[in-house]
Amino acid sequence: MALALNKTKTAVPSDIEIAQQANMLPIEEIAAQLGLKEEDLELYGKYKAKISPGVWDRIKTRTDGKLILITAISPTPAGEGKSTVTVGLGQALNRIGKKAAVALREPSLGPSMGMKGGAAGGGYSQVLPMEDINLHFTGDLHAITTAHNAISAMIDNHIHRENELGIDPRQIVWKRVLDLNDRALRNIVVGLGGKAHGMPREDGFDITVASELMAILCLASDLEDLKNRIARIVVAYRFDGSPVTVADLGVEGAAALLLKDAIQPNLVQTLENTPAFIHGGPFANIAHGCNSLIATRHALKLSEYTVTEAGFGADLGAEKFLHIKSRSGELKPDVAVIVATVRALKMHGGVPKNDLTTPNLAALRQGMGNLERHLETMENFGLPKVVAINRFPTDTEEELEWIRQWCEERGTSVNLTEVWEKGGAGGEALAWEVVRLAESGKSRLQYLYDLDQPIRSKISAIAQNVYGAEGVDYTPKAEKQIREMESHGWGNLPICMAKTQYSLSDDPALLGRPEDFRIQVRELRPSIGAGFLVALTGNMLTMPGLPKKPAALGMDVDAEGRVFGLF
Amino acid sequence: MALALNKTKTAVPSDIEIAQQANMLPIEEIAAQLGLKEEDLELYGKYKAKISPGVWDRIKTRTDGKLILITAISPTPAGEGKSTVTVGLGQALNRIGKKAAVALREPSLGPSMGMKGGAAGGGYSQVLPMEDINLHFTGDLHAITTAHNAISAMIDNHIHRENELGIDPRQIVWKRVLDLNDRALRNIVVGLGGKAHGMPREDGFDITVASELMAILCLASDLEDLKNRIARIVVAYRFDGSPVTVADLGVEGAAALLLKDAIQPNLVQTLENTPAFIHGGPFANIAHGCNSLIATRHALKLSEYTVTEAGFGADLGAEKFLHIKSRSGELKPDVAVIVATVRALKMHGGVPKNDLTTPNLAALRQGMGNLERHLETMENFGLPKVVAINRFPTDTEEELEWIRQWCEERGTSVNLTEVWEKGGAGGEALAWEVVRLAESGKSRLQYLYDLDQPIRSKISAIAQNVYGAEGVDYTPKAEKQIREMESHGWGNLPICMAKTQYSLSDDPALLGRPEDFRIQVRELRPSIGAGFLVALTGNMLTMPGLPKKPAALGMDVDAEGRVFGLF
Repeated sequence: MALALNKTKTAVPSDIEIAQQANMLPIEEIAAQLGLKEEDLELYGKYKAKISPGVWDRIKTRTDGKLILITAISPTPAGEGKSTVTVGLGQALNRIGKKAAVALREPSLGPSMGMKGGAAGGGYSQVLPMEDINLHFTGDLHAITTAHNAISAMIDNHIHRENELGIDPRQIVWKRVLDLNDRALRNIVVGLGGKAHGMPREDGFDITVASELMAILCLASDLEDLKNRIARIVVAYRFDGSPVTVADLGVEGAAALLLKDAIQPNLVQTLENTPAFIHGGPFANIAHGCNSLIATRHALKLSEYTVTEAGFGADLGAEKFLHIKSRSGELKPDVAVIVATVRALKMHGGVPKNDLTTPNLAALRQGMGNLERHLETMENFGLPKVVAINRFPTDTEEELEWIRQWCEERGTSVNLTEVWEKGGAGGEALAWEVVRLAESGKSRLQYLYDLDQPIRSKISAIAQNVYGAEGVDYTPKAEKQIREMESHGWGNLPICMAKTQYSLSDDPALLGRPEDFRIQVRELRPSIGAGFLVALTGNMLTMPGLPKKPAALGMDVDAEGRVFGLF
Repeated sequence: MALALNKTKTAVPSDIEIAQQANMLPIEEIAAQLGLKEEDLELYGKYKAKISPGVWDRIKTRTDGKLILITAISPTPAGEGKSTVTVGLGQALNRIGKKAAVALREPSLGPSMGMKGGAAGGGYSQVLPMEDINLHFTGDLHAITTAHNAISAMIDNHIHRENELGIDPRQIVWKRVLDLNDRALRNIVVGLGGKAHGMPREDGFDITVASELMAILCLASDLEDLKNRIARIVVAYRFDGSPVTVADLGVEGAAALLLKDAIQPNLVQTLENTPAFIHGGPFANIAHGCNSLIATRHALKLSEYTVTEAGFGADLGAEKFLHIKSRSGELKPDVAVIVATVRALKMHGGVPKNDLTTPNLAALRQGMGNLERHLETMENFGLPKVVAINRFPTDTEEELEWIRQWCEERGTSVNLTEVWEKGGAGGEALAWEVVRLAESGKSRLQYLYDLDQPIRSKISAIAQNVYGAEGVDYTPKAEKQIREMESHGWGNLPICMAKTQYSLSDDPALLGRPEDFRIQVRELRPSIGAGFLVALTGNMLTMPGLPKKPAALGMDVDAEGRVFGLF
């Protein structure tokens, strides 16, 4: 939700000032907008709730509302404001008389303590209570951390005892997790200190949102499916190379028990009291980067319009939303909104970050290639689409007009949004266009690969039809892993590409719309519980580090409980 | 709350069966018994709440109710049922017309997944909702885990950067924590993998309840005091030997922010709808082993009688409750209840565990020495006392009568309790006796050492006047540490003894009332934030391991969310 640059709009107070002055309604009143009663909620204070387990049985046969997918051009350091547009569009839809809800990911604490200082939209398009959402919220991430590490402890206990399963300590692929940025835990040795203290082996910690349990929580249809998926997780390999699952360890029940509350969707509200489901937040590279299927489904049954967001640009987030989440959950988005800014498009056209306020039509034209590629992808998927230009004060009329004409020539809808500065009122034009497209009934979702295609063929389909690559190369390691995966019977799972978000290619320096490039797949990892195979095109850090001056240094709470330093 | 043997009373259903059939009241109704309104609560579902921060200002000038301290003989594998008596006595006091609340520690998840399968009283004297309390509850332990590890990440980030504070990586005493039993994490090496991944060094994980943050949360008087104590924590030493604190790192604000909700007391209820404050749970060896001061204070202001429990036997839990928690928080217990069972007294008299059902007056007489020593300690502290014999079906009338006479000869009150089998009704006689003693106004709390005595003199006072030791020996290491601590200006803090709970001595095999023994202090550790010096008399494991067949293997949740395997 990188919106640092929006803060230069000095007429608008800071995010935390806006959030702290907000007029929140009791969460029961927000739930009432969705037709839910107090007994349908598990309250977490006055402004947060989980939807009770019984609600789904009552609403599951209803017709779904419209599903609006918010995606974006390839992200740049200039910031696009995708979450802000998601929240703002939800608010705008309510303003024009549609019952709308937003469905977003829940933030991870680690990055908040490091770089970002919080994440919940921005300006007058935020979700509330912002402090709580950015701190412990309803404990979902803590539950995942605990369940994940409980499985780890069972693995190490198993090999410390008689190792009846024959687990090879060199081939344990289930690392530990914490919801913190902590580079010193990336590569560790555990089990030192002698015979009473376990079997020494190499290990490491990932950040909690990288846990396969997070991906599972976000793809499971219910508690039973959650448990069955956990049972299928591959945690290690035996000396003979055969996989060891959580079911082999016998702890899928305990892990599911630890997640029984976490799986229920969280309900909060936006600054304009639009219902907001904030639930689940898997990594957008080694996982699929969308909020939970359960939350999205609840929103679809309880509102006329559900506005949801996918991670990174359309080549990663939207592609995975469609191929993984939609396929698994039988979702059919009605409209795709592609968020862009003049600034970010100019960066894609080669302008350095400190030069973005200078009008530059040539760079804009050059950078448009990035948006164009993502628009083509949405067409390939069969989705009606609209471009949302998230307006900045430094944008010139000339630049905006140029974009308008460019889109018009291609028959693509385009709208300016000013939801950061004006809340829902700044997104009404976009909202009307979204409604027009959604009600046109023109969405014809089609996948770009079938599950029964060979693994390489599925990867090629994404690389060619989404990234615009010439082809795909594989390291010998990746080739070997593909053969192994097919021999284990995992060949028919969808692919989760782990690729830099900054470029359509696998080289983060190639901005805009790169041509004549190939993708190199270096490694594959099975996420059998989540139900996909991760194809890595580079080194993906799954445990971030802290910067020299972490955001935590500016955080504080005073004697009266007032919060400082989040944002 | 080791009550495994109680389960042989087959007439009573299992703990989880009783708990699941309970008639819980909405937590607002429990709060109303305490004179609290709905706006005084932050609800966590229908049956759990945190008391809102504003309540304390309104009630703090009220007169305290009576404070009843539940302690016990030295624990044995036979089980004493101290928590069960605490809950049962609270229920009994309400039955005889006194407004009573109980104040207990919150359980740690690690042991529940390992040996115990849960902890919240037993039989008809439990706290509810039992599953929630034993799982994530209101997230307090998760908040502590996160705040603790955030400090760790800041330390490693500091030494990975320019190490301006000159921290010696060999002298970092702030380990990491998880709320799990995981022996493989006791001794680890972090920061491997090369320059980008931190500075290699030895490290380890403790269980969360062993974190100094837990001790701090339980001794802090408010959020500001919490932050000030966190600032004082010593996390490492410089190359020149001088201490480095959290304040030096500048993250006391962020850590306090992460604990701002955790510091508020949790309110739940017992099976008979008695208000129960379940808040905080520090280790009873390397920390002081009592629930939070804040919760106890709230209970004292909001009820006529507060029944609270201290960890292990009176030599550890009660001693620390009085010397550390009561001194820090200006609490004055009115009555001490010492819990014992015939079975456990016979074990102290030398009977092996599988022979406890056989009547054995000689062993009982021999084992009585243990109770006698703890009674003398309570007298030394100036507290009126009553012995509570937690009755088992195998107890004979002859054994019970012998105990009754023994107590009578010494002028000590004694009562049978059957609160496990009968709930509050089984504790009415004890409740009447507690009320009589409390209303007598005979409590004259006096400490057994003054804070300005030298460290060695304070340790001697505990060893001689509480344990009955002849004296104290120190390893050269301990002697050196005492000199260093006094040079750092820490000499005037109270002592937190880390000693085996199974014996009055430091040898767990010496049951009953050992004579002619000396205590050996092997090491000292400063807990400057918590405000005490830990004196270790043996190797204290601060990260438990899992047994061969962990309780987690029996845990499960079904599609409807029903819980199995807790207890």
